[in-house]
Amino acid sequence: MTKKEIFEQIQKKKSFLCVGLDTDIDKIPAYLLEKDDPIYSFNKEIIDRTAHYCVAYKPNLAFYESQGIKGWLSFEKTVAYINQRYPEIFVIADAKRGDIGNTSEMYAQTFFEEAKVDAVTVAPYMGEDSVGPFLNYKNKWVILLALTSNKGSSDFQFIKDENGERLFEKVLKTSQTWANDEQMMYVVGATQGRLFEDVRKIAPNHFLLVPGVGAQGGSLEEVCKYGMNKECGLLVNSSRAIIYASSSEDFGQAAEAEASKLQKEMKIMLDTYL
Amino acid sequence: MTKKEIFEQIQKKKSFLCVGLDTDIDKIPAYLLEKDDPIYSFNKEIIDRTAHYCVAYKPNLAFYESQGIKGWLSFEKTVAYINQRYPEIFVIADAKRGDIGNTSEMYAQTFFEEAKVDAVTVAPYMGEDSVGPFLNYKNKWVILLALTSNKGSSDFQFIKDENGERLFEKVLKTSQTWANDEQMMYVVGATQGRLFEDVRKIAPNHFLLVPGVGAQGGSLEEVCKYGMNKECGLLVNSSRAIIYASSSEDFGQAAEAEASKLQKEMKIMLDTYL
Repeated sequence: MTKKEIFEQIQKKKSFLCVGLDTDIDKIPAYLLEKDDPIYSFNKEIIDRTAHYCVAYKPNLAFYESQGIKGWLSFEKTVAYINQRYPEIFVIADAKRGDIGNTSEMYAQTFFEEAKVDAVTVAPYMGEDSVGPFLNYKNKWVILLALTSNKGSSDFQFIKDENGERLFEKVLKTSQTWANDEQMMYVVGATQGRLFEDVRKIAPNHFLLVPGVGAQGGSLEEVCKYGMNKECGLLVNSSRAIIYASSSEDFGQAAEAEASKLQKEMKIMLDTYL
Repeated sequence: MTKKEIFEQIQKKKSFLCVGLDTDIDKIPAYLLEKDDPIYSFNKEIIDRTAHYCVAYKPNLAFYESQGIKGWLSFEKTVAYINQRYPEIFVIADAKRGDIGNTSEMYAQTFFEEAKVDAVTVAPYMGEDSVGPFLNYKNKWVILLALTSNKGSSDFQFIKDENGERLFEKVLKTSQTWANDEQMMYVVGATQGRLFEDVRKIAPNHFLLVPGVGAQGGSLEEVCKYGMNKECGLLVNSSRAIIYASSSEDFGQAAEAEASKLQKEMKIMLDTYL
């Protein structure tokens, strides 16, 4: 998928919502456990209820891998369902991979060729040759961790070098020599608030994948005020607040209501800041 | 497995070899492709041929995930086989995971409870709460990326802060406030040579997992000279040089010869530097 196509979808749907499919077998309504593939059944209902309000889905691989072989099957079926039923929607494998070159090649093959997602999240610690293999696919994306939403982001990401440049800024700068904004996005946590200004100084045109609104406490308003650019440039993720909006049989409706609520807030943001 | 048990095995086998099971379906002898599970058949033969000469196995998850569901099955069967047949051998899932807390919890569950490995490699970029969930398992290990073997290691890992401390040194120091040397090891690439001295200044007692001898060009002698401590403190990995020593039906014998050769070199190193 191209950047232009993502932006067109945002304009059409008046939304830049990404729904995080962090589907935990212990948290889905009990009656689904009788189904052949409870996780897939849950996801399918969530997808059909929210597709109208979002532009991206982001299954986090941890939740699927924890179910072993069955989990992988649920993951692949979920991606295939989105690709077939809602081909305009951007699919992100939140995998945070990154390894030496020949190994990253295998991961790229897994996610882009086998699972057929549009983007993979990648960790930057191992540098250029760990990211490069993910960049060899046309119209596929790397979403590089820059400034994460969690408390531990302060352990290393803010380390300043001799020139006062922080590690996350270094990651944003250096990685732009590897790929441009048609192939790379960055993860910047909503909890980082005003730091979006600093990110935009270095990466004015890139799309940012923004976790941390909702359960983690980030503010949508602040993210938009400091982070939105002329092509929106934001994919704001919400996982738990949407998919676990209800724990009973009406979970689909509850998820739809929550996604619709967020979409309305996003429409206001687009009208205000775009 | 405890540190003491690992060291006892090293003393008994006169080896600190870790065999990397980076099994690539495109590189295994063609006749194996007729088997039900070619990757598992290949691994089983490699394991039976090399178990006598090594103290650890390290399947890299990328190679298994690239085969989708079948690959996961091969991975789990491989680990189960080692655990059952050679319970004294340390099994490392080379996965380089790391995510926000609730997600890392899922990964920890996957690898320690479902796949039953002894250790997982983890990336440090997201800080303490991304690593913590892996530390909640008794006698299980986190192997944190510190100084990797690849070219891209120079992109960020050597960034110096205002006090001249490099990022990898910061990772080594900060992470010691999270866990001690009975639960944490570090990845330090063999290609970093003399830098093992600097690593040992900060982490004198930790075990180091050392990739990069062989195909990547690191020197075993240098690693031992600057990196060995009084409990050996090294697990030196070799993957391609062993498992692809031959591409025909004698691949098992060829792997055994290669592992045996490395074990002999390691015995000399232990006699010299321990």
